[in-house]
Formats: sequence, C-alpha cells, structure tokens
Amino acid sequence: MFEDRIQSEELRAKIVSADEAASLVKDGMVVGMSGFTRAGDAKLVPHAMAKRAKKHPFKISLLTGASLGHDTDKILSEAGVLARRMPFQVDTALRAAINRGEVMFIDEHLSEMVEQLRAHQLPPVNIAIIEAMMIHKDGSIVPTTSVGNSASFALGADKIIIELNTSINPDFEGIHDIYIPEARPNRKPVGVVKPDTRIGTTSIKVDKNKIAAIVISDVPDSPSLISPADDATNAIARHLTEFFLKEVDQGRMDMTLSPIQAGIGTIANAVLTGFVNSPFHNLQMYSEVLQDSTFELFDAGKLDFASASSITLSEACAARVFPNIGRYKDRLILRPQEISNYPEIIRRLGIIAINTALEADIYGNVNSTHVGGTHMMNGIGGSGDFARNAYISVFVTKSVAKGGKISSIVPMVAHVDHTEHDVDVLVTELGYADLRGLAPRERAPLIIEKCAHPDYHDILRDYFDRACKTVGGQTPHILEEAFSLHEKFKKTGSMLG
Amino acid sequence: MFEDRIQSEELRAKIVSADEAASLVKDGMVVGMSGFTRAGDAKLVPHAMAKRAKKHPFKISLLTGASLGHDTDKILSEAGVLARRMPFQVDTALRAAINRGEVMFIDEHLSEMVEQLRAHQLPPVNIAIIEAMMIHKDGSIVPTTSVGNSASFALGADKIIIELNTSINPDFEGIHDIYIPEARPNRKPVGVVKPDTRIGTTSIKVDKNKIAAIVISDVPDSPSLISPADDATNAIARHLTEFFLKEVDQGRMDMTLSPIQAGIGTIANAVLTGFVNSPFHNLQMYSEVLQDSTFELFDAGKLDFASASSITLSEACAARVFPNIGRYKDRLILRPQEISNYPEIIRRLGIIAINTALEADIYGNVNSTHVGGTHMMNGIGGSGDFARNAYISVFVTKSVAKGGKISSIVPMVAHVDHTEHDVDVLVTELGYADLRGLAPRERAPLIIEKCAHPDYHDILRDYFDRACKTVGGQTPHILEEAFSLHEKFKKTGSMLG
Repeated sequence: MFEDRIQSEELRAKIVSADEAASLVKDGMVVGMSGFTRAGDAKLVPHAMAKRAKKHPFKISLLTGASLGHDTDKILSEAGVLARRMPFQVDTALRAAINRGEVMFIDEHLSEMVEQLRAHQLPPVNIAIIEAMMIHKDGSIVPTTSVGNSASFALGADKIIIELNTSINPDFEGIHDIYIPEARPNRKPVGVVKPDTRIGTTSIKVDKNKIAAIVISDVPDSPSLISPADDATNAIARHLTEFFLKEVDQGRMDMTLSPIQAGIGTIANAVLTGFVNSPFHNLQMYSEVLQDSTFELFDAGKLDFASASSITLSEACAARVFPNIGRYKDRLILRPQEISNYPEIIRRLGIIAINTALEADIYGNVNSTHVGGTHMMNGIGGSGDFARNAYISVFVTKSVAKGGKISSIVPMVAHVDHTEHDVDVLVTELGYADLRGLAPRERAPLIIEKCAHPDYHDILRDYFDRACKTVGGQTPHILEEAFSLHEKFKKTGSMLG
Repeated sequence: MFEDRIQSEELRAKIVSADEAASLVKDGMVVGMSGFTRAGDAKLVPHAMAKRAKKHPFKISLLTGASLGHDTDKILSEAGVLARRMPFQVDTALRAAINRGEVMFIDEHLSEMVEQLRAHQLPPVNIAIIEAMMIHKDGSIVPTTSVGNSASFALGADKIIIELNTSINPDFEGIHDIYIPEARPNRKPVGVVKPDTRIGTTSIKVDKNKIAAIVISDVPDSPSLISPADDATNAIARHLTEFFLKEVDQGRMDMTLSPIQAGIGTIANAVLTGFVNSPFHNLQMYSEVLQDSTFELFDAGKLDFASASSITLSEACAARVFPNIGRYKDRLILRPQEISNYPEIIRRLGIIAINTALEADIYGNVNSTHVGGTHMMNGIGGSGDFARNAYISVFVTKSVAKGGKISSIVPMVAHVDHTEHDVDVLVTELGYADLRGLAPRERAPLIIEKCAHPDYHDILRDYFDRACKTVGGQTPHILEEAFSLHEKFKKTGSMLG
C-alpha cells in the first residue's frame, strides 16, 4: 500500500512507529510541524509526543503553518508539552492555557515567521514533522492538503520526521508549487504575476540523510469547523455584491473583479458562497486557505483559478472534492504560506482582501484577535499581510454578538490589529461603509449609520458628538469612556447595561 | 537666466506670474502639489492662491507628497483654502485646524495614496503644481529636491502648472529615477534589487499640451527643522550601535548591515549621525528622506549609496551640499515616494527601518501620530510602509517628554499606528528591548526594564502585575486603568500625578 509512495528503498528502512518517531523529540527542542488551517497537519507523532510527556514530561516550542486539526493543540497543551507556540491556533484548550499565561503564544503575520526563522532571528528548528503524500527516490517530499511553512521547516531542521499519509488521492501530486525566496539582501523579485503563475517545484527538495523517521498514516484531515450561511452572512454577501457592482458601475473594475482573498472562517466562507448567485464571473482567488466556497464557485462555473496555501473542507465537501481532485487540479496551486501571503504579490496583483473583524470602532480600526481587548481568540493570521497591501481591504462582521449584548461597533476597539489606514470597507449584515478617502470624523457617522446595530446608534452617536465637542482632535475620543461599552459588558453581561 | 531651462519655445510662451497661474485653480478642485518633507515644494503659486482666497474665497482638496515648507500649509489653511488635505503635514496652524475639525485630514501610508488615485478610488487631480529645475523640449519635467507624488500628479492631472526653480544646481539633473508601476492586476515586478538599481527615466514624461502655465522662481527650499543631537539622541544611537554589533556578532549581518531607512526628524537624524563614529562601513540607505546625517555619513566615508524620495537639509548642510551635488550624484537616487516606500522592495532588500514613536506601550504597540490619543501631530508618513515589511523594524523615542511629566512608555497607547507585530526593537536613551520572538507577557517586563524611565518603573510594573493577576489573557490589561497615565496628565499636567 505505502511502498509505491516511498520511492527509495533506503528510506523505506526508516519506517518506524509513531512512538519511536516521537522519541526523537527532546526537551527544549524547537519543533516545526506541517499544518495550516487544520489541513495537512502531522497527526500521529504529536499525539505520541503527548502520550510520552504524560510519563516523562518535556517541553518544546511548537511552530506550525497555522492551526492544527485532531485536537493536537489541545492534547499537547494538556500534556504540558507546549512552552511556546507560534504563529496561529484555534484550539479552545490551548487558548485557555495561553490566556492563563501558561503557554507563550507569539502571534505573527503568517508570511513573516519563516523569514525570521531563516534569518536566525528566532531559535532554529531542531526537528521538522511533516505530513507527505509521497517521498521521491531523492528524498524530496510531496506535501498533502497544505504547504504552510513545511518547506522552510524541512530545509532548516537538523532532522525530519515524515508522516506519510496513504489516504491522500495520488492526483494531489503536481498541485504544489514550492518556492523559497533568496536570503536578503540579495533577493530577487518573486515572479508570481497572476494567481496561476508557477515559479517553483512540486516537491520539497531536502537532503535525504536528514530524514530520520517515517511514520505511515491514513488519517484524513479534520473537517473544517464552519457553520452554514445564515441570514446575517447572506446579508453581508449581498451588501458586498452591491459594493462591487458599484465599483464596476464606476469603471474601477470589470465583472471579473480582482483576485480575491478570503480569511478563514464561517463569515468569509459564506460571503464567497454568496458569489455563486452573483453576476460576477471568471473570478480568481489568491488566498491563504480554500474553503467549501471555492469549490462551490468552481462547480458553479464562476471561478477560473484558485491559489492558496491549504484546502480545508467540511466533511461533505471533502467527500465530494478530494476523490475528484484531479478534475480541479489544473485550476489549483498550493504554495508556501509566505508566498500565498507575500506582500509583494498581494500589492502587485491588486487583491480584494476579505477578512473578519471581531470588533471595529467608529473610526474604522479593527480588532481581529483579542476578546475584551485581552484574551486571545485565534491570532492575526494572514489578515495583516493582506489588509495592508490589498487593492481593497474589506472587513466583515455581524453587527452584534451574544444576541445583541455585544456590539461589534464600539467607540474604541480594545485591541488594534488593523489601523484605519488598512480598512477600506466595513460590512455588517446591515450595510457597508466605504471609508476610502475619508477622515476619521467623516468615517464615524457613516460607520454608525451603515454598520452599527440600531440598538447602539444613540450610544455611539452620543459618544462621537461629545468627543468632538469636549475633546476634539483628528480622532476625537473621551479616553475615560472609550471602553465604557466593554466595561459595561463585563459588569452586567450586556453592552446595553 | 531661465531660457536654457525651458527647452521648448512654445512652452516659454506659457510663462506667467504666480497670480495668473493661481487663477487657474478653481473652487472645489483637487490640487496635486509637489513637495515632500519640505523639499521640492511649489513655493509661489500656493501663496498666490492664499492671497486670492482672501478676496475671493475658495476651497480645494490639497494632495502633496508629504510636508511642505515656506509656511504654505499655514498660509493656505489660514486663508481657508483647505477643505481636505492628504497624506501628511507638519504645520502648527494646519494641525490646529485639523484638530478643530475644520480641515479634513486623510492620514495615509505614503506609498498608497497615488495607488488609490490612479485606481480612481479617490477623486481625480484636476491640476498639478510641480516644482521643476528643467523642462525639456518634449515637455518632460525634471523635478528638484524631491520627487514625492509629482509624477503621478502630473500624469493624471488635466492641467499642469510648473514652478521652474532657477536656483537649483543644474547638476541635479540625472539624480531622479521616475518609474510608475503598471495598473493592477497586470502589474509586473518592480525591478529594484539594490538601493542603486535604476528602473526609470530622469524626467517626468508628460503631454506638453497639458502644461498650462510656467512660473519662474528662485526660492530655495525651507531648511529642515531638526535640532542638533543631544545626550539622549546620542545615547539612543549608542544603544542601537550596540544592538547592531550584537547582530553582527551572532552572524545575522556583517559590518555593512542591511540597507537603512530612517524616518524624518531630529531623533532619527541624530541616530544616523551617530553611525559616523561607529565601526560599521559601506552602509547603504533605502529611505524616504535624506537628512544632514546622510551627507555626514558620505563625507565620513561610511555610506556607499543612498536612495530616497527627497533631500531635506539644514541651512548649513544645504550650503555645503547643494552647490557640490555633482560630487554626490553617482551615489544618489531620488524616486517617486511609492517606489522609495514600496512594500515589495522594502521586503526584498531586507531594510533596517528606524522610525520615531510618540509613545509605545508595555507590549510594544506604537503611537506615532496622535497626541493624547486624539490630536494629530504630523501623520503616519512612511512608517507603516517600512515597519510592516522591514527585516528589522526599530522604533526610537526618548523615555520621557516635558521634563519627565510624560512617560513615552505607557500601559496602553492611546492610539495605535504600529501593532506589536511590526515592532522588533524599541530603543530609548536608557537602552533597547529586543522584542523578536517574545509573547506580550514577556515583552512587558523587558520594555519596562530597558526602555522606561525609572520614575515610571513602579507604576508600569504594578499595572502589569495587577493586569496579569486580575484579568489575565494574552495581553493583560485593566481597561478601566489602561489610560490612567494619560488621564492623570490631562488633569494634573504630569503622568506622575
């Protein structure tokens, strides 16, 4: 079964159990693991590590592409294995440990961590644990449903453990485009000029002597966690369609729009799904993760090409797409996350970036990460890579959370991930605010009117009016009251008091 | 005198007075003016506009490269001419008008405004007013001491007014490198691979029929406003040298470092001047503005090449450098600000970015623009272009202001321009904090210890400790107290109470 997936006899001799492979990971090591938005993660070895740690405690720094599936972050965190974790996660148990200050979480722009790593600005990766679908005779590794940081981890590590996943459709080979930019300051332009430009190889070329262990696996990716579209996400999609139609009408784009990026999660996925019934056509995606919506758009004949770093699907969509990946193959590229998220390419292609806000303030600053301004949700992910360099940077959010007890539009966000400079359009289920070319004092009334829930209009307008009158400035704020809604929520369980 | 600087007879016929030229500017127009950090600004026509407005009021949107000299922003603002202003300014009177809400100020990343303009995301420029040192036979315009946004303004405007400045040393011709990236999504890589790469032309190629008026001028640029180095700036330079030596020692750079960007202003200039006596050599700059320090480094034999968008010098330095610009010419390039600040190039070259913070918080978020969180100082300028994409992003500030009554290190910055992700190293006269690879809870004690003034150590440590204990989270904050130092200053005139 797996013999044809390890083309070197010498390497076949390195097949071991997950427990044996896990024993290579020592206390204090920096471990670089595959996995990006629950796709293509190493599945068996990390669990074996957690098992071992229960008897013989040890701690590591864990670096990945982005989030992992299979409760790996939960299990490692509960086993006390994680001293440090970067650059992104979505796990409830790990999140709690991070927020208790037990795990040091370094939240990073997804394009930047391997830059720092290769430049020795971070401690080097001692061991890489990479899921592969194929190992060639020369030792080169073909990744699976994500590329993430796997290539730089494998190239930089002293040792590599490979989880060879035999459940991956062989047709996946050829989808990947592995390219690592030269070291600076002698770097060349990265030559992606269209979403479909290929600039690299279809496998990761490593020194095969570094491959220390191979573990055979047939465990599929964890399905994505997205919820289906609802009235609010449909309304957001509708407003965004309306905005893009206005752009087309004013001659700024044609009906093929510009290449689209959409963040991970329910809202961004639902918004893209909404485009199935839009008049736009021959769309392209240059994104970090492809969710169900990408394949719905392919199947609806709306999408010409999609480039990203991973494919993360629901169980139903995976069952439909993965066995037939060959049918989509010539319209797909999976790249290292530093290339899917590379500022140079994002600016060059003129990306429409659609990312999710946790909360936005009346001036258009966005908090994507910190609940209540203090507690980490998931991480900034790629939103900073895209929003700063996008042609149009859109942030979407529902106007309220917790049944109306939390307003997503507040006087001042309690944590800033994206400044007003990087937020062009803000959309809630109530409407959109086009903020381009507006000063903060012009943004506030527009955001309140178009995006805030009516229950909060008076509160927000009153704050803005009083801030203008009593304090003034470019961005009027009454600092004593800037977080009054957050404080009220904490005390009473509702921002309405 | 000026005849040899206007090579077309047809164009010589368009010479008019500043008043006549100013009469072309009508109420409601969008005006694109040359000028970047007080260099190469149009000097006569804007003053004539202000004079006219006193009799016949009118309002415009004024777009420039960055700040202007000659009190132009003051005079225009006091004459009521400015309805809207972008993307940067440094004028006291204009600043007051902005903060009163009378002038809508759109604070923008310096690389981005012309992108939005060319993509018709902002109202088009009706008239461009550009300082030039030479007009060629075909109408092409050679800029003076800055390029800024002049090329895109001139190419996009319906009409062009040229201020031909005969005081500019003819040797300036050939220093400029004018290049405008293609429209997206069909843009090619911008081929600057070293600070000295030339990719464009030495003049702005415009349709000569658009040149509506030429005004002859011999007014030099306003001198820069920087103060001389003092003990604190010298100490900052010393700590930064120490940091770079550590980088060299650890094999991350050699003694030529990486190309350097330094923000406008006294501190950044003094820091660079400090490198004259450092052991570093064969330095290169890829920056937005070249100040006195650049020429001190040239003269000390420390600097090999400098690329920027403008040259802004003190009176003494200008008197020494400008008459002899020919001597420096083959080591200088002036580029459009979208190229000097282009994210693609900044990331590729591996820039060391040195920018000034107004205040930083214990977690490393930086406020560069808003005094007290509300009142605009100058604008974000190019700091966001550089900090986000730099190889190492350094922010410098003195630990205290107003004789110790303001701490530059606070629990939470009252306005965020740069998030913790974009701040690698924070330096005050007391020391530096290397924040790379650290979680917020690790950053706080380090920033307090290394960078905060001793008078504020206890206050900041106490806040951090209580925030960890009573609230917790990835970025512990007590929202009710986050701005307590700011509020105390407002009430008592001192953050110490």
